[in-house]
Amino acid sequence: MTEPFFQPVSGFDLPRFAGVPTFMRLPFVDFDHSRIKDVDIGLIGIPWDGGTTNRPGARHGPRQLRDLSTMIRACHPVSRTDPFSLINCADLGDVGPNPVSLEDTFNRVVAFYDKLGTAGITPLSLGGDHVLSYPVLKGLVDHKQPVGMIHFDAHTDLMDSYFGDFKLTHGTPFRRAIEAGLLDPKRMVQIGIRGTAYDFEDIEWGEEQGVRIIRIEELMDRGAADVMEEARSIVGKDETYVSFDIDFIDPAFAPGTGTPEIGGPDTFTAQRCVRLLEGVNIIGADVVEVSPPFDPSGATAWVGISIAFEILCVMAGAVHGRKNP
Amino acid sequence: MTEPFFQPVSGFDLPRFAGVPTFMRLPFVDFDHSRIKDVDIGLIGIPWDGGTTNRPGARHGPRQLRDLSTMIRACHPVSRTDPFSLINCADLGDVGPNPVSLEDTFNRVVAFYDKLGTAGITPLSLGGDHVLSYPVLKGLVDHKQPVGMIHFDAHTDLMDSYFGDFKLTHGTPFRRAIEAGLLDPKRMVQIGIRGTAYDFEDIEWGEEQGVRIIRIEELMDRGAADVMEEARSIVGKDETYVSFDIDFIDPAFAPGTGTPEIGGPDTFTAQRCVRLLEGVNIIGADVVEVSPPFDPSGATAWVGISIAFEILCVMAGAVHGRKNP
Amino acid sequence: MTEPFFQPVSGFDLPRFAGVPTFMRLPFVDFDHSRIKDVDIGLIGIPWDGGTTNRPGARHGPRQLRDLSTMIRACHPVSRTDPFSLINCADLGDVGPNPVSLEDTFNRVVAFYDKLGTAGITPLSLGGDHVLSYPVLKGLVDHKQPVGMIHFDAHTDLMDSYFGDFKLTHGTPFRRAIEAGLLDPKRMVQIGIRGTAYDFEDIEWGEEQGVRIIRIEELMDRGAADVMEEARSIVGKDETYVSFDIDFIDPAFAPGTGTPEIGGPDTFTAQRCVRLLEGVNIIGADVVEVSPPFDPSGATAWVGISIAFEILCVMAGAVHGRKNP
Amino acid sequence: MTEPFFQPVSGFDLPRFAGVPTFMRLPFVDFDHSRIKDVDIGLIGIPWDGGTTNRPGARHGPRQLRDLSTMIRACHPVSRTDPFSLINCADLGDVGPNPVSLEDTFNRVVAFYDKLGTAGITPLSLGGDHVLSYPVLKGLVDHKQPVGMIHFDAHTDLMDSYFGDFKLTHGTPFRRAIEAGLLDPKRMVQIGIRGTAYDFEDIEWGEEQGVRIIRIEELMDRGAADVMEEARSIVGKDETYVSFDIDFIDPAFAPGTGTPEIGGPDTFTAQRCVRLLEGVNIIGADVVEVSPPFDPSGATAWVGISIAFEILCVMAGAVHGRKNP
Amino acid sequence: MTEPFFQPVSGFDLPRFAGVPTFMRLPFVDFDHSRIKDVDIGLIGIPWDGGTTNRPGARHGPRQLRDLSTMIRACHPVSRTDPFSLINCADLGDVGPNPVSLEDTFNRVVAFYDKLGTAGITPLSLGGDHVLSYPVLKGLVDHKQPVGMIHFDAHTDLMDSYFGDFKLTHGTPFRRAIEAGLLDPKRMVQIGIRGTAYDFEDIEWGEEQGVRIIRIEELMDRGAADVMEEARSIVGKDETYVSFDIDFIDPAFAPGTGTPEIGGPDTFTAQRCVRLLEGVNIIGADVVEVSPPFDPSGATAWVGISIAFEILCVMAGAVHGRKNP
Amino acid sequence: MTEPFFQPVSGFDLPRFAGVPTFMRLPFVDFDHSRIKDVDIGLIGIPWDGGTTNRPGARHGPRQLRDLSTMIRACHPVSRTDPFSLINCADLGDVGPNPVSLEDTFNRVVAFYDKLGTAGITPLSLGGDHVLSYPVLKGLVDHKQPVGMIHFDAHTDLMDSYFGDFKLTHGTPFRRAIEAGLLDPKRMVQIGIRGTAYDFEDIEWGEEQGVRIIRIEELMDRGAADVMEEARSIVGKDETYVSFDIDFIDPAFAPGTGTPEIGGPDTFTAQRCVRLLEGVNIIGADVVEVSPPFDPSGATAWVGISIAFEILCVMAGAVHGRKNP
Repeated sequence: MTEPFFQPVSGFDLPRFAGVPTFMRLPFVDFDHSRIKDVDIGLIGIPWDGGTTNRPGARHGPRQLRDLSTMIRACHPVSRTDPFSLINCADLGDVGPNPVSLEDTFNRVVAFYDKLGTAGITPLSLGGDHVLSYPVLKGLVDHKQPVGMIHFDAHTDLMDSYFGDFKLTHGTPFRRAIEAGLLDPKRMVQIGIRGTAYDFEDIEWGEEQGVRIIRIEELMDRGAADVMEEARSIVGKDETYVSFDIDFIDPAFAPGTGTPEIGGPDTFTAQRCVRLLEGVNIIGADVVEVSPPFDPSGATAWVGISIAFEILCVMAGAVHGRKNP
Repeated sequence: MTEPFFQPVSGFDLPRFAGVPTFMRLPFVDFDHSRIKDVDIGLIGIPWDGGTTNRPGARHGPRQLRDLSTMIRACHPVSRTDPFSLINCADLGDVGPNPVSLEDTFNRVVAFYDKLGTAGITPLSLGGDHVLSYPVLKGLVDHKQPVGMIHFDAHTDLMDSYFGDFKLTHGTPFRRAIEAGLLDPKRMVQIGIRGTAYDFEDIEWGEEQGVRIIRIEELMDRGAADVMEEARSIVGKDETYVSFDIDFIDPAFAPGTGTPEIGGPDTFTAQRCVRLLEGVNIIGADVVEVSPPFDPSGATAWVGISIAFEILCVMAGAVHGRKNP
Repeated sequence: MTEPFFQPVSGFDLPRFAGVPTFMRLPFVDFDHSRIKDVDIGLIGIPWDGGTTNRPGARHGPRQLRDLSTMIRACHPVSRTDPFSLINCADLGDVGPNPVSLEDTFNRVVAFYDKLGTAGITPLSLGGDHVLSYPVLKGLVDHKQPVGMIHFDAHTDLMDSYFGDFKLTHGTPFRRAIEAGLLDPKRMVQIGIRGTAYDFEDIEWGEEQGVRIIRIEELMDRGAADVMEEARSIVGKDETYVSFDIDFIDPAFAPGTGTPEIGGPDTFTAQRCVRLLEGVNIIGADVVEVSPPFDPSGATAWVGISIAFEILCVMAGAVHGRKNP
Repeated sequence: MTEPFFQPVSGFDLPRFAGVPTFMRLPFVDFDHSRIKDVDIGLIGIPWDGGTTNRPGARHGPRQLRDLSTMIRACHPVSRTDPFSLINCADLGDVGPNPVSLEDTFNRVVAFYDKLGTAGITPLSLGGDHVLSYPVLKGLVDHKQPVGMIHFDAHTDLMDSYFGDFKLTHGTPFRRAIEAGLLDPKRMVQIGIRGTAYDFEDIEWGEEQGVRIIRIEELMDRGAADVMEEARSIVGKDETYVSFDIDFIDPAFAPGTGTPEIGGPDTFTAQRCVRLLEGVNIIGADVVEVSPPFDPSGATAWVGISIAFEILCVMAGAVHGRKNP
Repeated sequence: MTEPFFQPVSGFDLPRFAGVPTFMRLPFVDFDHSRIKDVDIGLIGIPWDGGTTNRPGARHGPRQLRDLSTMIRACHPVSRTDPFSLINCADLGDVGPNPVSLEDTFNRVVAFYDKLGTAGITPLSLGGDHVLSYPVLKGLVDHKQPVGMIHFDAHTDLMDSYFGDFKLTHGTPFRRAIEAGLLDPKRMVQIGIRGTAYDFEDIEWGEEQGVRIIRIEELMDRGAADVMEEARSIVGKDETYVSFDIDFIDPAFAPGTGTPEIGGPDTFTAQRCVRLLEGVNIIGADVVEVSPPFDPSGATAWVGISIAFEILCVMAGAVHGRKNP
Repeated sequence: MTEPFFQPVSGFDLPRFAGVPTFMRLPFVDFDHSRIKDVDIGLIGIPWDGGTTNRPGARHGPRQLRDLSTMIRACHPVSRTDPFSLINCADLGDVGPNPVSLEDTFNRVVAFYDKLGTAGITPLSLGGDHVLSYPVLKGLVDHKQPVGMIHFDAHTDLMDSYFGDFKLTHGTPFRRAIEAGLLDPKRMVQIGIRGTAYDFEDIEWGEEQGVRIIRIEELMDRGAADVMEEARSIVGKDETYVSFDIDFIDPAFAPGTGTPEIGGPDTFTAQRCVRLLEGVNIIGADVVEVSPPFDPSGATAWVGISIAFEILCVMAGAVHGRKNP
């Protein structure tokens, strides 16, 4: 059992709609706070959409995710675990972006996650567009062994360039991360890929590197249990990053995103997939591409934070396991 | 065949968007009306959300449900029954609530349903938040044998108290109803339960009383037919109440509700479940928690009233059976 | 490979949100344009909802479909075909309707499609309400052999009349087309039928003519592959029209339509069905009933145009096959 | 003081959101009702938009106006009159339209208002698009002296024809009514005219007939009091019809309409104008062009019904005056 | 100049959309915080709508107001004062309400403001519905001299009772406060009153007590400067409370509220009025009735928090004056 | 009278909702088109929001402005001029932006406007965020005399830098343009300035350069005629650019923008101001900051394009005058 300081406020005591909204009603603990050294898992907002090639707005994601997160209760309904009692979780605030400079923001994110790694905090990042996964990985993993990745998405994000040789967009982060030696493509699996294609260069390049790409048709036909068993065996017991793009889920369930693709899985399937990450040695995760201007109702943010809680639960198990080997 | 008086207006004659909107375009018959004695099933609005612990608005449910209900046509597409020809249905209007007093409204609802029971009218109530099921049951069942219940919901509504020992909220009605001897817990089944939990005291208490709680995972794995067969066998042939919380259905299909939980069933599954109530001895039913401010489009009310029509069809069979034994 | 003139603008070059929106970023080629004679498939808007009996707005469909269509990329993700390279596609603009006269608009549509048939262009029409299928068929097929049809819809659209003997509404086009000898009812299949019914006269009449009507329950139980195999065998190798009413799909996925019916298929199933049209000898198709006022977010139009792209891909195969026998 | 039967339900007794929504919570009294002979002013819905040349949806106006009208309280805040106590008001329901036939609906409206005139009931009609004013006038005034009119609108609605000689649209009703001898153009005044123009033929034609056209600039510069004094002097003491198009008001205040024009008056000015109708011998009035699909929030309907209440108050004075000369 | 601790975060440093949203990006300082003793003005949320007689949702006000408040910059554009540099301001969090008990919440609010008064903090409260002004005044003023009030509103909130003698609703707070000796009616002025009326008992009672009621027509005719001069002379130099109901402003500018009345002032006029509070001896203020479910866009909350900043500026002057006499 | 080629399509012929939407239904004429040499005024979209410091989305402006622009009719209602008959107007399409590079897009815009200047076409640009005015001016004016400017806005856009010395954002374009010698500050006037302030460095710097800054209070007190007379005298007869930020107008009228400030003018005042530009020697103009994600209803785009039409009319006079001196 963690200390009262690290417990979220209960809805039995303070109604869900009340109070300053931190992620999941956890304490706000930034690097200047005296309790920062006790944090095991940090929830961090990255309000940045500078890599977006079409519809922007993911910069507003962390704010709306915090708002909706006050509806999360402490216990997982199936595993019955309470992650907040297992290890110390806190809201570390947002990485301050520079909305008029992709490069400057990139460097700010790298610096933040480098500091986080030094502090021994495992991050759960809430985006923001998908470009952020690259600087997060760079901050966390640089000068270390490449990590594996389980990646839920409608798109591979393995493109090479856009608009005449621009290399850094939300369609390219994982190609950059592989090239930079941050990700081990042979320990990478992408699930849910679909949608019309410019061409198939991204898929071909990825498969050449050894990335396992599981299209939506394969997920639908084989089912979550079978696919996730394969995913777990691909990443094995070594360090693994989990990246969850909200557009993995069908836009009927999560309309508030920049590049929706129809024909996706429902949230039940998404929950099943995430729950089957149990046992994976997660060293960081993100939930990205929630774009509030395209869903002011908050329904997408509710899906996003609900999935983030599912990830938090399996991640808490991994962190707890590493602390208590 | 019922009389023309009790027939809904057809969309072949008057377009769906025209006319003063009563429930399903039925005649408005209140207790002062000369035809009240001929009504078999009464559709009643209970515009009340005084038990809501988070997002309010269900008080506006009956108004929007009436509006959307004008799109309902007379015949069920699968069973091909026309409930309005089988027995006499009418819109009985709304129970007038007191929005600034939970207690006063509670008493008004009890009084209305007591009168209804005396008049021999079987009620289909449209909410309103879920707290209403308790005074409805009190009005209908008090001083009689406890009844069984088939309950579709994401939540058990078997909590004990909120905010420091407040006993009556939309999270507690069925605990109160069991304690009051209105429901027989051994003839109760709850289907669709999911979502993060404060703790598991509600489930444990319910199971101790004998309530059968079927989580969403079980429904998804076993399928509607299997689960509903078990549900029918649990309630048997005795008197049974049906309570349908719109949040049973996934929020992609029914976003307009106060406490949505992702990972729920689609409307096709919901329709299947309700159709499989055929043969149950239904003595009353409700559809609750449609909250129009959270879905001004009316999509949720359309789901709600469509489900209400499904319930009406099986209920009409039960009422007809009781009148023609 | 088609000429550069007929290639859509790529999102790698010009962002999706930029440029004057033609259908799928194809060249705009009207009958006065010098390249009209080279067009194989024409995408045409029919902004008309004069046959709507309930909620109007489908007249705004083509505009919003064009807007969303700029998010379509050139290649099909599963078959990997690029229809725009296979044959010449173009946006032919809209048929100019007369919003205050059903009859005048009817004649305008017939005239347009008659001209199109003469020019040897295969049409993919974007509605507009479903009444348009009748004048489209009349323009295309009149004085020729009746054609077969595969029809995706929640409704049969085989009604006889409304509002006291009015014969032409969006509930009657296919009855009129059968009576006029434009459709061969023995080569007609309707998939997805559901929703409450006025009566069953439409279904009975259709079945008497030989139309195969597959209700949603049958589609859900048998699956897309089995049902579509039957559909293909019903229409055989002769000329076939494909009509896709957006309300075939569940309203959670496609809310922006005039007559939604709950309990429909998801978009994944809809995509599966359309992909299984491969091999059908398609001589024209339409996607209808997208009503933007009931979904300003564009989500429904995104579904509509995504399905239209799926149809275009199988249609391109058919057209290519006819040109290269 | 009128009888209790004709009193609206008070919000002190039944909350505003409860009950079946009739116009202003008045009794529903159709032509078959025993109290029809006692009605002085009838509120009638005309859910019809068959004359709309651009954005449809006004057919849904009466439903949403009834919904919002339950927020109207009984007394006018400035004059302190209670119209419901002065004379008998009732909701007479809707004229049933035929959405697929302009001609048929036209005839239905004429017949309804002819009957109304015979019954001696003064109508306050809630639309519906502006085309309805023509058949309403035809039903009310045919075979009688032409009446005067005070007309609030952004458009003259004095066009001749559209789409190649179609004479009946929502841009032409008053030209038709003048031609038919229903309106006396020399006793007609139009206030608020603005917006870009096709040409100025309508204005020139109107001015030739003697219609006084007051553009928005004139209203803004002279003020409501001065302009309305002129308007009252133009119509004098003879019978006068009042037609209020919601697009008279600026679209920031009333966005839910088909043909908004910026630069209009605020609602305060609109209220002032209507209050200054006091003393006019009103024999009928309408409020038109509220189009709910373009404002699901109901804000426009709230403006519309608030203005309707203002009109009702001055109309009640006129009716009361005629009954008690 | 205040210390850096009490300075809001600048948008030059951290973009407006980033960070955990406290009111105006001020430090969060609750009663347990070490700096609480240094706070001069506390911004407090009261997320409570238990007194609402019609449309609920104001309980969600503080959350959305905090969100939008991050767009407020530090300096007033006209007076050029920076309130945050003049005195110490902080976000004190929310008073935790009990949404199922009006009485319990009442007591919680009284207790909170009693504590605040003891701590010498001047409160700016953000609601919440208008019922909250009564317990706030009770907590602040009880056992002291009655205070004066300048009250901006469309309604007097001087009603006696609702729903059969219920005395505490958002229509009654100031009658209760006068009866309880918390307000001195002879030093009370109400500005902006309008809208249809149940009757005029509230106005008559208020005027009998000596309350000066300025209807909207008077404000529009005399202008802000003249009316506010009178208001200042009514309250004089003694202690005065300012209550600002967002429905004072026309619903085109502030649609997200429960009881909108058309014909109100624009925001420019509202700003003028508030700026003319300069010199008033303000001992507390509130901005109430922002109801986010009725304006998910946040436009109303933006108006609300902008007005709150205007009030804060004049209040800061008053507090500074009291500290530096 | 211009040729038929350059006439917009009339709504009398083709309904407003039909057809591929070009700006104001003008012909689409890009630099490759044979008629480009005959164009006098080009309407150009600049779908770019890379300089936005807070809420993005203005990149979607040109698409929605084109959509709404089909509701513009050919003639100005007050001056009765038809700009399309006076000189040749065309839609030149969009400048293709690079959403992931501020610098690259900057250069693309400069190049486009340089080409335009060479071609002798006067531009009316539709944004996009306000940063675009700087490269537009650079392309148009570089190596020429500095031009004057009349600038309608809530903000000066004369800031120096953001986020630690970043010089190019939508808050800095006019400081950059003055520094670059593109604008003559002594011939610059800014109208409508308001809103909270970071500090007053921008205003002080501007006034030091000689810019005339007219705050909203001054506009409201003096009125449009007086203020615009001063503005015209400041810019005199030399070349002048007009820049219209939609946030000049109050957010009740134009909510869809990134940095709204309450207390602004209504659209009537805005129209008056623009009409009073008559006689100014306009060599280019822009309408910027319409952000569709913050107003999916299109109301803001309708305001934006209506204002653009007003500007077009005075600009057409200026262009016509220069061609026919």
